[in-house]
Amino acid sequence: MLDFTFHNPTRIIFGKDAQGQVGKETRAMGKKALLHYGGGSAVRSGLLDQVKASLTEAGVDFVELGGVQPNPVLSLVEKGIALCQQEDVDCILAVGGGSVIDSAKAIGVGVAMNEDIWPCFLGQKKVTATIPVGSVLTIPAAGSESSVSCVITNEDGWFKRGINSPIILPVFACINPQLTFTLPPYQVGCGCTDILAHMMERYFTNTKNVDVSDRMLEGIMRSVLLNAPITYQNPKDYDSRAEICWAGTLAHNTLLDRGRIGDWASHGIEMEISGIYDIAHGAGLAIIFPAWMRYVYRHNIPRFLQFATRVMDVDMAMDDPDAIILESIRRLENFYRSIGMPVRLSEVEIGDDRLREMAEKTVVHLGGTRGNLIPLTADDIEAIYRLAL
Amino acid sequence: MLDFTFHNPTRIIFGKDAQGQVGKETRAMGKKALLHYGGGSAVRSGLLDQVKASLTEAGVDFVELGGVQPNPVLSLVEKGIALCQQEDVDCILAVGGGSVIDSAKAIGVGVAMNEDIWPCFLGQKKVTATIPVGSVLTIPAAGSESSVSCVITNEDGWFKRGINSPIILPVFACINPQLTFTLPPYQVGCGCTDILAHMMERYFTNTKNVDVSDRMLEGIMRSVLLNAPITYQNPKDYDSRAEICWAGTLAHNTLLDRGRIGDWASHGIEMEISGIYDIAHGAGLAIIFPAWMRYVYRHNIPRFLQFATRVMDVDMAMDDPDAIILESIRRLENFYRSIGMPVRLSEVEIGDDRLREMAEKTVVHLGGTRGNLIPLTADDIEAIYRLAL
Repeated sequence: MLDFTFHNPTRIIFGKDAQGQVGKETRAMGKKALLHYGGGSAVRSGLLDQVKASLTEAGVDFVELGGVQPNPVLSLVEKGIALCQQEDVDCILAVGGGSVIDSAKAIGVGVAMNEDIWPCFLGQKKVTATIPVGSVLTIPAAGSESSVSCVITNEDGWFKRGINSPIILPVFACINPQLTFTLPPYQVGCGCTDILAHMMERYFTNTKNVDVSDRMLEGIMRSVLLNAPITYQNPKDYDSRAEICWAGTLAHNTLLDRGRIGDWASHGIEMEISGIYDIAHGAGLAIIFPAWMRYVYRHNIPRFLQFATRVMDVDMAMDDPDAIILESIRRLENFYRSIGMPVRLSEVEIGDDRLREMAEKTVVHLGGTRGNLIPLTADDIEAIYRLAL
Repeated sequence: MLDFTFHNPTRIIFGKDAQGQVGKETRAMGKKALLHYGGGSAVRSGLLDQVKASLTEAGVDFVELGGVQPNPVLSLVEKGIALCQQEDVDCILAVGGGSVIDSAKAIGVGVAMNEDIWPCFLGQKKVTATIPVGSVLTIPAAGSESSVSCVITNEDGWFKRGINSPIILPVFACINPQLTFTLPPYQVGCGCTDILAHMMERYFTNTKNVDVSDRMLEGIMRSVLLNAPITYQNPKDYDSRAEICWAGTLAHNTLLDRGRIGDWASHGIEMEISGIYDIAHGAGLAIIFPAWMRYVYRHNIPRFLQFATRVMDVDMAMDDPDAIILESIRRLENFYRSIGMPVRLSEVEIGDDRLREMAEKTVVHLGGTRGNLIPLTADDIEAIYRLAL
């Protein structure tokens, strides 16, 4: 176990009327909020009206900026920053999923730092400040509601890049599993895949002696494997949806990677797909993770064996570790299929014409490699894309 | 799963030089600290000198109050409150284990509320304020370093009672597993028993659909069952000690009981033993928990079966649940013995002469029953004491 600091002060308000507390929580952050959201569903469902009523009741003034799309873009972030500065906004309330919250985080940093923020996403400048950000979560997936990370796409070159800083930890998150009942099944599948991927990125490590965090990861991964197909088939089943929502927050709130170094190659490799082709991040992960596992597992057989036996319940003979691990990957693919995910690039009609370009973009700002379990070059990444065809 | 709020802002600084950061962390809480500690070990080991040097280097003024004993007493708390008020202390640094941190928490509340605090421990008055408290932890056991609870013994009647309030969550905890290498083996055994008990209290619930928290609890309990005997046999093995330290903090920091109602009868039943006889809390728990389990398990067979199969690895035939559960209790007792714990009152030379008195004291301030899985009356509790003889 490596030395670490753990500090996650985000207040999670979880349950059947969580959004009713949003006014009070926002008022504790500031006096005038940017109300930031995506497209029509928060409007159509009446959630946005509920949120506005709660803000008004609590005496919070607000201005609105909607229109956040999946894979949130830098141009809308810049529009949000300008709006906040013009309107003297002192806090941000995001109503939506990870894209809206990520967009809100980027706006918060831009308002407080008052300078060009893209260099922060390229690792060329440190994040030093933000105005406070809270959220009402409508999609269990990205874990952004209590995470240190934020991913934005710069339309100039379609680079999708993230920042990681404790400064951008949100102040609060209201999570009502009922708000997620109306999500399209495909989005539920993508969300569950993303949640599982956040834990797999942390789980596949070379750090030794991380038993407590291994077992927490294994337990919550097993819960997602159990509950995701139930919630996919029964969207209004509160119990399974609540497990997925709580798992989604825990998967990415820094608790589960204390004292260990995660891998994160698959997220990077996937980002070039969803950055260029605009397919959902979760669907991209379901395609990339099995290919990544097949490509790298020989670099840490004990770790992949532990995943196979403790998480995927494979109990074949231990004198053939390759067979055990490959069986666990097949089971993982079956899981993805059970929640409507593709597991090959060909299933989403992506061919081999831009693989080299994507492989090179994956490592371009990062010194030539991606990932920690085994650092992958552009050649390795191209080979992984080919395994995923 | 029940609705819940989760908020634990305690900053955990964990690793091989954690105590080196104590000056900086204390300075962030205030200008003048009460340096609160127990007996000789922190002095003899040189830890207290290191802490003082770090405080001085960071520009923190301080006054000292040592002498905290296991089962910390109200009289020393009152002395600490008076000292803080007299010396204009604005924060408290506890150096020690759960007893020292609990004593510091009680002093912090007394200083900020500036009134008699014992009614808070009797549930007759609400905790409304505290001055900030931080710690350097030397014993992994109570979890007080990032918990909402604090237990104090009032020598007037030897009542041992606790408060539970988010207000008393400490600001930070420095946890260096190396500082625990010199603990006597008996104290290590007691600590591991307490850590496991904090999770068992949370685990034995009637709340349904708590899969994610069940699995986190199961995973960390299994890690304690694995690592406690290793660390008991090899006190200077950093890896197992680090797992126990991290498990000890997580076991009691409110994460693992969100959305569920824990039991907590065994803690109450044990407190009367260690309140009257001054034996270690951990040793008392190793005696009481198996007796409590045997007495209550028929009230929730599925829950105790899950514990037996998922935590204690019992895989006997499912058509005899009693046998499976009783086997899990025997394995739990074997575990306790493997870390030097007693499992019967007779082993610590406690007879049956005061059992009725203890049973009645367990429920006296609490409306006549203890525990949530099945509320226990004084008669039930006396029967549990008799099972433990």
